[in-house]
Parts: sequence; C-alpha cells; structure tokens
Amino acid sequence: MSTEIIKVSASSRSAAVAGAIAGVIRTEGSAIVQAVGASAVNQAVKAIAIANGYLEGDGLSIVMSPSFVDVDIEGKDVTAIRLSVEVRG
Amino acid sequence: MSTEIIKVSASSRSAAVAGAIAGVIRTEGSAIVQAVGASAVNQAVKAIAIANGYLEGDGLSIVMSPSFVDVDIEGKDVTAIRLSVEVRG
Repeated sequence: MSTEIIKVSASSRSAAVAGAIAGVIRTEGSAIVQAVGASAVNQAVKAIAIANGYLEGDGLSIVMSPSFVDVDIEGKDVTAIRLSVEVRG
Repeated sequence: MSTEIIKVSASSRSAAVAGAIAGVIRTEGSAIVQAVGASAVNQAVKAIAIANGYLEGDGLSIVMSPSFVDVDIEGKDVTAIRLSVEVRG
C-alpha cells in the first residue's frame, strides 16, 4: 500500500491540510494523517472535518480510524496519533 | 435517535472515556463524543483509539466522523468538535 502520510503540526493551517486530505482521497481513496501532540491532533481532526465538507460536493463521505504509532523525531522516540482516513462504506 | 453524548474535557482520563465509549457502542451501536479545545479533542481521539482495542475482543471495529457544532457553555457560544463513532461497515 502506497498511502501517503500527511504530517500535521501544531502550526499547520487546518484548511490547507484539509485540501491536501481531500486531494489524496480523490486520487487514492484513502489517506493517512499523522500528528504528535494535542495541538497537532486537534488541527488534524479539524482538517478532516473540513475535508469532509470539501468532499461532499464529490458525493463522498469520509471516516477516520485512530491508532497509536511510535515514531522517531530527531532521535527521540515519541508516540504519534495516526488517523486512517477512508471513504465511508 | 437517542445516541448518548459523551463529553470529554482536558482532564478526562482517556482509558475511562474509552470504557464509556466501548460500553455505549456495545449497547447502542454508535456513540457521540464531544470535546471543546485542543487538549480535550486529543483526549477524545486517544480514547477512541483505546476503545477500538477494547472492542476488538468483541469482533468490532469502530470509525469516527468529525464535525463542528456550536454549543453553549456557561452562556458563551463556543465551537465544539463532535466525533460520531460507529461500527465500521
């Protein structure tokens, strides 16, 4: 599976991330969104809510499934939240 | 629809919220989780990831769909994130 990982940080703009998510969903049918820390997770969830609105016009509805993943950031082991986004149904 | 709303705050324990979500999913088949602010949204998403683990033993897999809702908190109009949790498929 070559699903692209969209990395979201606390300073990411939700609308810009939403556009990226909607684009990947349109071309791939699914997307992986990853965030570390409460602010980044919040931006990611808001982006997915906005992306859902963008995709309504295409007759698509998306859902997400969260999981924990260990990632290496500058040599430190941290726990990220990974949100698997897919078209409903 | 009488789906219960599980309200999550920044100080909610993820594991406790996860237990509540798993319980409602087992009895109702769906649950609504609501959070205001980045920390609360983060706790809610973590709780849903943990609940997914709890429900695996029941052969259930859950997904969530985020949306924005306006809520009144002590007379102030604030935007909450509502996570509609449902059994996949």
